[in-house]
Amino acid sequence: MAYRRDELRWNGWGRKDVGFEMHGHDDAVWRFLAETVGLASLPHTPATDLEHLALPPSRLPDGLLDALREATSSERALTSDFERAFHALGRSYPDLIRLRSESLDVAPDAVVYPESAEEVLAVLERCMAAGVAVVPFGGGSSVVGGVEADGGQTPAGRRPVVTLDTTRMCELSAIDPVSRTATFGAGIYGPDLEEALQAEGFTLGHFPQSFEFSTLGGWIAARGAGQQSNRYGAADDWLVAAKVATPRGEWRTLPFPHSAAGPDLNAVIAGSEGVLGVITEATVAIHELPESRDYRAYLFRDFESGAAAIRRMVQADLPTAMMRLSDADETHFFGTFKSLIHPPGSVTQAGERILDAVGFGPGQGEQGRCALMVGLEGTTGEVRYGLAQTLAICAREGGLPVGKGPGSAWWAQRFAMPYLRDPMLDRGVGIDTLETSTEWSNVAHLRRAVRGAIRAELGPNAAVLCHISHSYPDGCSLYFTFFFARDDGDAIGQWRRVKIAASDALRDHGGTISHHHGVGRDHAPWMAAEKGALGIDVLRAMKRELDPTDVMNPGKLF
Amino acid sequence: MAYRRDELRWNGWGRKDVGFEMHGHDDAVWRFLAETVGLASLPHTPATDLEHLALPPSRLPDGLLDALREATSSERALTSDFERAFHALGRSYPDLIRLRSESLDVAPDAVVYPESAEEVLAVLERCMAAGVAVVPFGGGSSVVGGVEADGGQTPAGRRPVVTLDTTRMCELSAIDPVSRTATFGAGIYGPDLEEALQAEGFTLGHFPQSFEFSTLGGWIAARGAGQQSNRYGAADDWLVAAKVATPRGEWRTLPFPHSAAGPDLNAVIAGSEGVLGVITEATVAIHELPESRDYRAYLFRDFESGAAAIRRMVQADLPTAMMRLSDADETHFFGTFKSLIHPPGSVTQAGERILDAVGFGPGQGEQGRCALMVGLEGTTGEVRYGLAQTLAICAREGGLPVGKGPGSAWWAQRFAMPYLRDPMLDRGVGIDTLETSTEWSNVAHLRRAVRGAIRAELGPNAAVLCHISHSYPDGCSLYFTFFFARDDGDAIGQWRRVKIAASDALRDHGGTISHHHGVGRDHAPWMAAEKGALGIDVLRAMKRELDPTDVMNPGKLF
Repeated sequence: MAYRRDELRWNGWGRKDVGFEMHGHDDAVWRFLAETVGLASLPHTPATDLEHLALPPSRLPDGLLDALREATSSERALTSDFERAFHALGRSYPDLIRLRSESLDVAPDAVVYPESAEEVLAVLERCMAAGVAVVPFGGGSSVVGGVEADGGQTPAGRRPVVTLDTTRMCELSAIDPVSRTATFGAGIYGPDLEEALQAEGFTLGHFPQSFEFSTLGGWIAARGAGQQSNRYGAADDWLVAAKVATPRGEWRTLPFPHSAAGPDLNAVIAGSEGVLGVITEATVAIHELPESRDYRAYLFRDFESGAAAIRRMVQADLPTAMMRLSDADETHFFGTFKSLIHPPGSVTQAGERILDAVGFGPGQGEQGRCALMVGLEGTTGEVRYGLAQTLAICAREGGLPVGKGPGSAWWAQRFAMPYLRDPMLDRGVGIDTLETSTEWSNVAHLRRAVRGAIRAELGPNAAVLCHISHSYPDGCSLYFTFFFARDDGDAIGQWRRVKIAASDALRDHGGTISHHHGVGRDHAPWMAAEKGALGIDVLRAMKRELDPTDVMNPGKLF
Repeated sequence: MAYRRDELRWNGWGRKDVGFEMHGHDDAVWRFLAETVGLASLPHTPATDLEHLALPPSRLPDGLLDALREATSSERALTSDFERAFHALGRSYPDLIRLRSESLDVAPDAVVYPESAEEVLAVLERCMAAGVAVVPFGGGSSVVGGVEADGGQTPAGRRPVVTLDTTRMCELSAIDPVSRTATFGAGIYGPDLEEALQAEGFTLGHFPQSFEFSTLGGWIAARGAGQQSNRYGAADDWLVAAKVATPRGEWRTLPFPHSAAGPDLNAVIAGSEGVLGVITEATVAIHELPESRDYRAYLFRDFESGAAAIRRMVQADLPTAMMRLSDADETHFFGTFKSLIHPPGSVTQAGERILDAVGFGPGQGEQGRCALMVGLEGTTGEVRYGLAQTLAICAREGGLPVGKGPGSAWWAQRFAMPYLRDPMLDRGVGIDTLETSTEWSNVAHLRRAVRGAIRAELGPNAAVLCHISHSYPDGCSLYFTFFFARDDGDAIGQWRRVKIAASDALRDHGGTISHHHGVGRDHAPWMAAEKGALGIDVLRAMKRELDPTDVMNPGKLF
């Protein structure tokens, strides 16, 4: 079951009937968030209703809507306000700001829902012939402007845009339990994909925070990584073969375990962000469902020793699924946040006093304890082996095991945080995230540089939290979350200043512009510095080859 | 220390002062090989001496040699017969046939040895201006025609060729023990690279059979895989960042552990085979030297159960370094071969009788025991854990452990086999190899198809051996070795018929045209089927972008 579009929020996160649960402690939470961003009280800043939203008029070339209906069906080539608003933008902070405002400056001129690769090819052909841009759209959860329905300017004015929603291509078409691969329509949502695999005893193991509302094709297009990527790999690791509908026809790769037949073109498809074509089908590496799981937490006296523990564990090639280290500010913030929603009992309070006495008390800035979550998954033997090894390494690096409680709490809430964003936006709070990766020897330096750049823009009344979310033998990601009092007179300008400051810091201090969110429009200005002029030329040459008239997702990636 | 070129064979394998050691049992070995290829006795078919070899005249455009000497030095832009013959071809079977004949139809018109990326860029600039082709050359061990000094035809006739020998760019320029990466000049030979790393307690762990006479840049350009790739990965796995000198200037990638900033351009460099430019520097992932190693063998009653054991082990993500399964013919051939060089004592003979009695006797074709080697490397704890797990899985799949003896024997000889080829060529024997990979569910089918195709060409008096050399959760490689009586009237034609039959079988039955040897000239005709027309267009578009006048390694890859 793909979601019915009308079950979902068009200007916010997820299902309309789900919200962030505060268990009746809402007032305390909002007081805490107000304090965090330096406000005495939070303002009332509601979103605009769809019926009051001004959309740009739909302007398709004569005959194109009929042609799209001929290529698909009349039920699947749509121009309603809801469809156009739903598909106008992604779900980044600035996208939500725009979606909540009174008028939208972009929206697709039509939305089509093809049900097969042939239909996608037919849609591309019609749009190419009409000079109309095509924006591929899966779950639409991009946080980097990857699905913005902007066709760019032509001498004749704004170019019309058709958004191609892939979510009707959502079937499991083959499963090979011997080779451990499965082939799906690329528009399948995370939960449907896992349900189909788990019924056969398998899992892809790709669980990004957006899991419930993002699609297989989107994961590949954005080169995403799930929370358990230590075990299951990022999209470019688990992608085995793909079909891509390009303006020049279908392009496919074959499912070889490894090949030396020239460059690996799966690596060109992963990260292509819809600028080369529409991923219609993907074959992926799957795993037996883990027999056993062990998620537990450790406290470290500082970020550096926690990071060293992750480094030791990942370099020792232990069978971990996930290692996640929060800095002191993030540990403090979420510790407080959680204690407001689930007030601690006296036992926990006593425990806290003991932790404080032995040097693991909470703190902020560069002082104070840092929480590390270590997740193990696999056979019982593998988890037992991994647990013994990870316990030993954490102990050696000064970590204090604090048991499985925090692990269970994290697990239960691992897809919930995006639901908190909408009520924050209703109350004048700004919240954004950004993420990067760098080599281990540069982690401390880069974290300081980015944190400093964000704080310099937002001032002292902002919370800037950071954690290591993904790790590799040679380095790790750094994931920053920041809250601040929104400047509603110039919310987009305020956001852009932070984005520029942080992205410049990444570029200047050895971080990639994105570890797993992708490039979209928002990161495109930093791509030339990252890929080099010749690297960009290579990417442009590929695009010119497959999309000679620049139909596909214009303005994204570079 | 890079090798002095004059220490090496220009028309054979490796060092002039090293050969294949038969411990005085030469006659018995050659009798066995004669029988294997159906000859009563082996003929005397010596190679041509360099002084009797007819080389095509060196024809450089006026002034180019001076320009190359200006770009490098007069000692490093050479036109001697030795340099030209040494760099004319790679070291494949057909290349050796051609190098051993009385005249060569290709040879570089000059050979240059730049010592820096700047010198490489200067050489490319001079050659581009002169309309001369450039062939990058590291160790020159290509077995697919990847370094053939053929500039192609122009309307004015054969285009001159400068071969660019990278082996003077061979320094360790940086090592980061925290991030576990090291940066080298790309022309460094395997032994020099390992010596530099092992002095610091690290290893790259990339040990292809060509290890002693191949270079870092060649490994990357051909997307090679070492024997221990289960632990250390293939070149495209361990490549972290690279510098490539292209006709349009230097192109570089940055060392991020993972990134979602568009497609991974390291994956374009790996497998580029010199057609985009010259890899001048590479940053690679390194590992701590393993504390412990355990290489031991198992016997299986048939290939399928041995393959199932590998599949179970690799899908269980055990810390293996290598798993290698020989089919019955290969197990029989090497068992006999080894017993001739090291005649077995009575204890071994008694052991053989017991093995025979319990159903693990030798055999041929689809009957007879198959030897599996399992190599474990890592910390003592890791190897102990891996050993327990692999023993259990092998037992479950019907494997009989036969101890470490075969492991030690294989280890001692792991780079020696190529030295056997030259004396075989001196005696009228033909020998070639080819390799592929496919998904687990297709392994048995593909092995039969390729084996059948080779045998159909070579007839019954040929030995066709096969082993699984590399394994992955979704599939494995298949490595074929075949010996036959050479048709010296038409040795190249004989080779080509087998190559076509086997390559067509790969294409038609789900195998890649190469798992780790690369494409070069020999596999290029099968690339369109493998990559698809649009895939080839994408590769060509990249090449046009970086090498607009088609200077770089013409005729290779596609």
